[in-house]
Amino acid sequence: MRDLADALTEKNCDAYVVYDSSANADMRYLAGFLTSDPYIYIYPKEGEGTVIVSSMEELRARRETTCNVVTRSAAGLPDLIQEYQNIETATAHMIKNFAGTKLLVPQSMPVGFAQTLMTVADVTVDRGTVALMRAVKSADEIALIREVQKRNEEATRCAVDMIRNSETRVDGALIFEDEPVTSERVRDVIAAALRPWKCEERDTIISCGTDTAMPHCLGTGQLYANQPIVMDVFPRSLVNGYFADMTRTISKGAPREEIIQMYAAVHEAKELAAEMIRPGISGAEVHNAVVDFFAENGYVTAGSSGFIHSLGHGVGLEIHEGPSLSMSGGILEPGNVVTLEPGLYYPGVGGVRLEDMGVVTENGFDRFTNFEKQLIV
Amino acid sequence: MRDLADALTEKNCDAYVVYDSSANADMRYLAGFLTSDPYIYIYPKEGEGTVIVSSMEELRARRETTCNVVTRSAAGLPDLIQEYQNIETATAHMIKNFAGTKLLVPQSMPVGFAQTLMTVADVTVDRGTVALMRAVKSADEIALIREVQKRNEEATRCAVDMIRNSETRVDGALIFEDEPVTSERVRDVIAAALRPWKCEERDTIISCGTDTAMPHCLGTGQLYANQPIVMDVFPRSLVNGYFADMTRTISKGAPREEIIQMYAAVHEAKELAAEMIRPGISGAEVHNAVVDFFAENGYVTAGSSGFIHSLGHGVGLEIHEGPSLSMSGGILEPGNVVTLEPGLYYPGVGGVRLEDMGVVTENGFDRFTNFEKQLIV
Repeated sequence: MRDLADALTEKNCDAYVVYDSSANADMRYLAGFLTSDPYIYIYPKEGEGTVIVSSMEELRARRETTCNVVTRSAAGLPDLIQEYQNIETATAHMIKNFAGTKLLVPQSMPVGFAQTLMTVADVTVDRGTVALMRAVKSADEIALIREVQKRNEEATRCAVDMIRNSETRVDGALIFEDEPVTSERVRDVIAAALRPWKCEERDTIISCGTDTAMPHCLGTGQLYANQPIVMDVFPRSLVNGYFADMTRTISKGAPREEIIQMYAAVHEAKELAAEMIRPGISGAEVHNAVVDFFAENGYVTAGSSGFIHSLGHGVGLEIHEGPSLSMSGGILEPGNVVTLEPGLYYPGVGGVRLEDMGVVTENGFDRFTNFEKQLIV
Repeated sequence: MRDLADALTEKNCDAYVVYDSSANADMRYLAGFLTSDPYIYIYPKEGEGTVIVSSMEELRARRETTCNVVTRSAAGLPDLIQEYQNIETATAHMIKNFAGTKLLVPQSMPVGFAQTLMTVADVTVDRGTVALMRAVKSADEIALIREVQKRNEEATRCAVDMIRNSETRVDGALIFEDEPVTSERVRDVIAAALRPWKCEERDTIISCGTDTAMPHCLGTGQLYANQPIVMDVFPRSLVNGYFADMTRTISKGAPREEIIQMYAAVHEAKELAAEMIRPGISGAEVHNAVVDFFAENGYVTAGSSGFIHSLGHGVGLEIHEGPSLSMSGGILEPGNVVTLEPGLYYPGVGGVRLEDMGVVTENGFDRFTNFEKQLIV
């Protein structure tokens, strides 16, 4: 929390204030109390973090958070609603009364509420202090993410095994135990494998054929032999909220030659990137090295073709968080947990993506991902 | 979209601009393109809605949205990044170049980006136009929500059946097919029943005993006989994004007398509310009638005890949306889909909640929920 204290001193503010549900990862990180409805977190220049919750959440909040817990009633909200006849204005006054008149707020605060808060206090918008804190993981966080990735590999293995052990119908359709192998069925297999570990999948990508040329196409319907199948699986622990992230591209039987070539290039690009990762290098340098590598091998990016996304991203309480391994990626430091996921996409042909994750260490990169890279199964 | 056009005219703005992922329900409602990363939606005073997406999303966007699709590159972003050396500033200029200099934005826009946008354009913050549009459901939307509620009831029935058919160990623990009946196991049963219908559950509440005194306590571990079990299940369609919402309180064998009395009062409160629902009445009137009813029956709200939440809420692409049936609830109109969920909570004793949902019609309330109300199973 030193970074937040430093930001308060630097900006000459009394307190840092967030007003959001725990769907906001910053809120989950700072306050640790899980809600679908917004509550207030206050980190004062002196003293400890406090959450202000509705009475109905008081008992649960005391159980879940290490912060001080105050109810809206105890913080005077009912009287303020009487006085101002507007919940948002009353909430702004309650925050000012509790936290002070010089407030630091995250850039994610909704502009509507921020404007109301500005009518009662001096408001300074912080630019990403908590995101920077979150980008450097503690040993505990690293252990949690490793654990989710372990479950991810077990679940992905179930899916790969189903495809490997399926039969090919005369039209190329994959059949397993007399039923079609579809994107949906493979997702079900993955979800079922994750559930006992209290992990869930959402929006798992199981795309096939030319659909794989769209990096975020989830995929639907029948899977076919001799075509690329992109499996991008990023489960989340329902207990602690941390994500893992892995992509594999496979084909039941040999795919067309272009895909085999693309696979080799993508694989080499990923290893090239992994060897470059160390503290002090920038995400941009690593990303650009991969761009150059692809260009040297004839894979030039144009419009929707080629290497059309960034090389990687941080992973934690959000599936996409800092640091970024992209054109604009900053300096990496120990504790950053990042993905390396080069990909090549050609509409009408298909796509290949391979993604590993790991942590930036004092002198390199400790990869979490142990899953084999094998195109043809 | 007439409401949005009216808002633009009234505020003298050129275009309405949202910059968010489809996790923002407004974005899903307006643009209908599913993403985990933010993209831009522009609704101009004249013409049609446009989305601006990254090149990697272009093909998928064209497939999923009925809006015009423009890539960031085509909208000039790369040159603007060169010029301003800052992605956020460049994005603001791109929006201005495309949409005009007088922009209407939602109150949910992050204040950080809103401030950047304000450096290049006149920005007016809209207060909930799209939320009001979303609160009035079309016949198609009503059909989708009804369908999810149907699946919800099938899934909840599986859970109730497991509890009903379980055996009671000497210490009161429920056992089904030789294994303990836990909150987690009941959630698994519900999830498995929903999955073939492409619906998912998240944060389903299966709480037992004194934990039920915390309305949002998810519940964990062993379930017991002769104690209230609160089951609050709100699945979402993975296909269209609409939610349903239902709560039942059951007990395997008779619970303590207070719970039986509370159940009768909560049930009566819900029916009282259902009879009041019609166009023209305010959510506050209905909520206050339930507060009065509870008070007349000796259930006075104090701190964390009694009826400590609002009576109900709208349901749609968000589980909690407009209109509100609470102290501050406004006038209801035909097409509003709302829950009625009175509850009573006493720490050390337990809680009871019953929740039905339905749509406000031209002359009353059409309930979607057909699930029986039966405390003792």
